[in-house]
Amino acid sequence: MTVTVVSSATKEVRIGFDQPFVIIGERINPTGRKILAEEMKNGDYSRVEADALAQVLAGAHMLDVNAGIPLADEPAILAKAIQLVQSVTDVPISIDSSIVAALESGLAVYQGKALVNSVTGEDDRLETVLPLVAKYNAAVVAISNDETGISEDPDVRFAVAKKIVERAADYGIPHSDVVVDPLVMPIGAINSAGKQVMHIVKRLREELHVNTTCGASNVSFGLPNRNGINAAFLTMAISSGMTSAITSPLHAEVMQAVMGANVMMGHDPNCANWIKKYREPSADGEERGARAGRKRRRRSA
Amino acid sequence: MTVTVVSSATKEVRIGFDQPFVIIGERINPTGRKILAEEMKNGDYSRVEADALAQVLAGAHMLDVNAGIPLADEPAILAKAIQLVQSVTDVPISIDSSIVAALESGLAVYQGKALVNSVTGEDDRLETVLPLVAKYNAAVVAISNDETGISEDPDVRFAVAKKIVERAADYGIPHSDVVVDPLVMPIGAINSAGKQVMHIVKRLREELHVNTTCGASNVSFGLPNRNGINAAFLTMAISSGMTSAITSPLHAEVMQAVMGANVMMGHDPNCANWIKKYREPSADGEERGARAGRKRRRRSA
Repeated sequence: MTVTVVSSATKEVRIGFDQPFVIIGERINPTGRKILAEEMKNGDYSRVEADALAQVLAGAHMLDVNAGIPLADEPAILAKAIQLVQSVTDVPISIDSSIVAALESGLAVYQGKALVNSVTGEDDRLETVLPLVAKYNAAVVAISNDETGISEDPDVRFAVAKKIVERAADYGIPHSDVVVDPLVMPIGAINSAGKQVMHIVKRLREELHVNTTCGASNVSFGLPNRNGINAAFLTMAISSGMTSAITSPLHAEVMQAVMGANVMMGHDPNCANWIKKYREPSADGEERGARAGRKRRRRSA
Repeated sequence: MTVTVVSSATKEVRIGFDQPFVIIGERINPTGRKILAEEMKNGDYSRVEADALAQVLAGAHMLDVNAGIPLADEPAILAKAIQLVQSVTDVPISIDSSIVAALESGLAVYQGKALVNSVTGEDDRLETVLPLVAKYNAAVVAISNDETGISEDPDVRFAVAKKIVERAADYGIPHSDVVVDPLVMPIGAINSAGKQVMHIVKRLREELHVNTTCGASNVSFGLPNRNGINAAFLTMAISSGMTSAITSPLHAEVMQAVMGANVMMGHDPNCANWIKKYREPSADGEERGARAGRKRRRRSA
């Protein structure tokens, strides 16, 4: 029963086989968002703040923070963005960069136990990122590709994940602090992508005993009604044992699928969260009645 | 790779491990529908016809037909309803009754290979229903309860299903013509109901090599936003190997979940059905442009 514990200064989040699915909000990322990139570069973090608050309100349990802006001082901007997000929300953060210096500056200012996003299977990446993860006692996302690229064979991707988990152990990082991203392919291009993910997630769980995450929306790339595909994918991934995803909590359809999957897995005791969220209007019928009463009185006055 | 083939006079439907999920429309059922019951009793089948057409239009691959009306001549009404439905649609029918004489009168008029709904595990039911199924070369839904009622233990329900499959074989009915309903409990009352179904469906598939079906909407009994729960349930059931369900195709959310699950399972080659159904407006942008052009011309005239 593997549990990955991450935290902010005041709040703990548990990613685990017997836990409700963890949603890591993906929005704070300037990739493909020109205005956000420009603002962050100029020291304006108002949109970062708004995105943080909106995602937590929508149900994100953690937030991914990325500051990948070409020709900008990424380590400084990432640290600033993390400090800002930690000042306005209490959810743990996934520190997201492909630049080791940026990961380090983010970790240096972070309060709590962060999730480092990410390390891949190349030896030079393992040798630079894993010592940082160990030094700051963080958890880490392990992406299952390496110098040979991303294999279409899920068993090759499993082998890369296994290598990362073993190398992490060499640095004193337990398997419970490695969250594997098995890489989700666009199902419009590779029709077996869904079954691939279910297969590899089961192997990761049963053989490596690790938690899992993914960039969920990649599965629907190029297809119409992407939220419908993302909802089906997440529901199936959860039933296969996936325990978290980096995705947007702002899509009601996707959040509903995740909440429904939690109910199905027995991870929403007495369906309490489901009922709280979707309770029929009749549940506050008395209040509505009272309001209607006021209206009538006003009309008769 | 078990395949259950059912048919009308002109159309075949295949329920199978490697087939798209089969939706059996549940609407033609007077239980709890007073007006429909009254009409059917008085020989008015206009609503039966409308329900048949609407469900096929919404994507039902088969239709369940039930005529369970208290104090009415169920064998005669069921036969009439089946003849009517077969005259207006070409989808195969699930002949639904708890009265053996009604099943027989339905089978006697049916054109094609029907699905008999249903037989349970009691000896007297097995001894009366299975010979009929064999005589008419039909397939049959096997419901996994018996004289002891419905067990909360999915492994007991599995044992009842196994008994029915074995008894069917004694009558010359192959396991490929037995579609097992593992019985879906309301998850609001039994929080493990979702995992139970996934467990038993896997056993039914791997050990008995049978197709499966269920009354899907039972899972959400008593909860708000039932379609959301039904969608999550069906997606998970399909990923566990369930191959059909008796449900309403009139809920867009539920049909989307089934179509998305077909994509995820690799049962919608090139996502063709998904794309056809959800294609973005831009796909017919030329036509829209042409229309807009006409409008402009009209304005300038």
